[in-house]
Amino acid sequence: MSLTLSIDAMGGDVGYQVTIPASLQCLKKNPQLKIIMVGDQQILQEQLSQALVEFEGRLSIHHASQIVDMDEAPQKALKNKKDSSMRVAINLVRDGVADACVSAGNTGALMATARFVLKMIPGIDRPAIISTLPSIFGHTHMLDLGGNVDCSAEHLYQFAIMGEEVVKAVENIDNPKVGLLNIGEEDTKGNEQVKAAATLLENSSLNYIGYVEGDSINAGHTKVDLIVTDGFVGNVALKSIEGAAKMIGTKLKQSFADGVFSKLAALLAYPVLKAFKDSIDPRLYNGASFVGLRGLVIKSHGGADAKAFETAIHLAELESEKDVARKISEKVELAIANRDGEES
Amino acid sequence: MSLTLSIDAMGGDVGYQVTIPASLQCLKKNPQLKIIMVGDQQILQEQLSQALVEFEGRLSIHHASQIVDMDEAPQKALKNKKDSSMRVAINLVRDGVADACVSAGNTGALMATARFVLKMIPGIDRPAIISTLPSIFGHTHMLDLGGNVDCSAEHLYQFAIMGEEVVKAVENIDNPKVGLLNIGEEDTKGNEQVKAAATLLENSSLNYIGYVEGDSINAGHTKVDLIVTDGFVGNVALKSIEGAAKMIGTKLKQSFADGVFSKLAALLAYPVLKAFKDSIDPRLYNGASFVGLRGLVIKSHGGADAKAFETAIHLAELESEKDVARKISEKVELAIANRDGEES
Repeated sequence: MSLTLSIDAMGGDVGYQVTIPASLQCLKKNPQLKIIMVGDQQILQEQLSQALVEFEGRLSIHHASQIVDMDEAPQKALKNKKDSSMRVAINLVRDGVADACVSAGNTGALMATARFVLKMIPGIDRPAIISTLPSIFGHTHMLDLGGNVDCSAEHLYQFAIMGEEVVKAVENIDNPKVGLLNIGEEDTKGNEQVKAAATLLENSSLNYIGYVEGDSINAGHTKVDLIVTDGFVGNVALKSIEGAAKMIGTKLKQSFADGVFSKLAALLAYPVLKAFKDSIDPRLYNGASFVGLRGLVIKSHGGADAKAFETAIHLAELESEKDVARKISEKVELAIANRDGEES
Repeated sequence: MSLTLSIDAMGGDVGYQVTIPASLQCLKKNPQLKIIMVGDQQILQEQLSQALVEFEGRLSIHHASQIVDMDEAPQKALKNKKDSSMRVAINLVRDGVADACVSAGNTGALMATARFVLKMIPGIDRPAIISTLPSIFGHTHMLDLGGNVDCSAEHLYQFAIMGEEVVKAVENIDNPKVGLLNIGEEDTKGNEQVKAAATLLENSSLNYIGYVEGDSINAGHTKVDLIVTDGFVGNVALKSIEGAAKMIGTKLKQSFADGVFSKLAALLAYPVLKAFKDSIDPRLYNGASFVGLRGLVIKSHGGADAKAFETAIHLAELESEKDVARKISEKVELAIANRDGEES
């Protein structure tokens, strides 16, 4: 079964110099994959002249005359950049030409555009952002990571339903363990929304394991596969972990740079330190999915290099193969129908 | 100028086997320090027989017949444990016998008891918890870390005022840089409380630097000295960082345990790895202050060892010397008076 991805070739801090090598690498790895590079026809034609021959029938260019700036206001991009590489890549998903789109562009603009073009699944207000975080034993999925700052219990419940489908697809498991992020594991802990969401989750068909604390994020998957929280808390947790990893990496480097003996030790320990660094390489965790939309949109870090962008494309492949957007839509519809049934 | 601390000798996972060696170490280091060990007279008398001679006039025992269990419900402890080592240690602060108290006991019970015995500063609803986190260049102070889950803008503003006094005392600086934790640095980001708190802080006399993100926690002090957030987000951020540090430490250990060459490299790199480990030693960051009370209470981690408990005592010494509780009280009174003045 072939699958087609539209790539916002011009998006991100670097643009086509990252998106092109990553896309070609993915085409090499997956013979079922087709890619549409969206962006300036002339530039892409020039850059891809050889590749278009090598991947004939699987690689094509779709022209888009504009680029959304990384700091452009979302509403401005929506209004003035109707022919941007980002917008056109999303249009291709809406029109059924592509199964999913991948962009390293401006997050706010990508979310606003995706919402405008693809529309939300009925019953969902705003897209949520879900991504994978490294853990001791594997990794943990978490949402929302920034889309929704003020969340009701109902929102948190919907995140759990949507997140479950992503985890099932990406991890290839049946009953992901779902935890609700809180400041303690006891029933009495937390704010009103979290307590009310816990009741909704307890009465759902999800494999709900209860409250988890911040230190469980890096304890997946043995403890929890999916952590649900609002976009404010999720974003702060994600960034806090990034900051901690950066601090620890810097201190480790400093320790090994400190004095002649340390430098010698660093030299001898180099392969081990390299293996360690690779094991927590953030590029292997690049790619966040926007869920709640009538179509698949994967967001890459703006500063991603080719290897990191490849990870984001790979996520789009996985979610397309498993038809995640449709499954989410069906699950949400069912959950709303069940609740309406109970209420009437 | 001498200062006196009351120590909940029986609190924590271990109790007097941790609190006694830590206290004696502090008495050795600071000749101005007096310590009252609160707990079972017979046990303490036996354990301290030599020390009472060595530190005559600076070390004493105050009997308390009960111990609050680590998992005891706060309200139950408040009602049934009126002669607990925790309660009596706090009583000594209320009665002006001690300048501050240090406990490694049950957090909820300590907070409820401190609030009941010492009373809140007028205008403050609940104690907030402030602590220090390691960063690349030094460290960052953050509050609230768990006392207050639902916070208004006014609460966040009060946290900033109270936190500033703690930072001034602990860091010995005049104008700590105060940041408000948010999910972006732009004005448009965040929830309603955070946006309203930003306005209050902009119009205050504090050295307010604006919004900071989660990854700034580990970027103090060059960027920010004090980060203000609600107790839910603060607790999640703190625990997330703890989890990340644990994960990274485990992965590093695994890398060095993996194969004969790696083990050899570990042996050679041992002093460097040790120096690195020491540089992020969480025991050097033990000790959180409860602020908003009419007296100083320092909470140590329940699982603290003697070295970690020593850090908590040292914090109590610092805050006592600088008379932080009184300064907070004056600042809060002033802030309320100014606001009432503007309103009328």
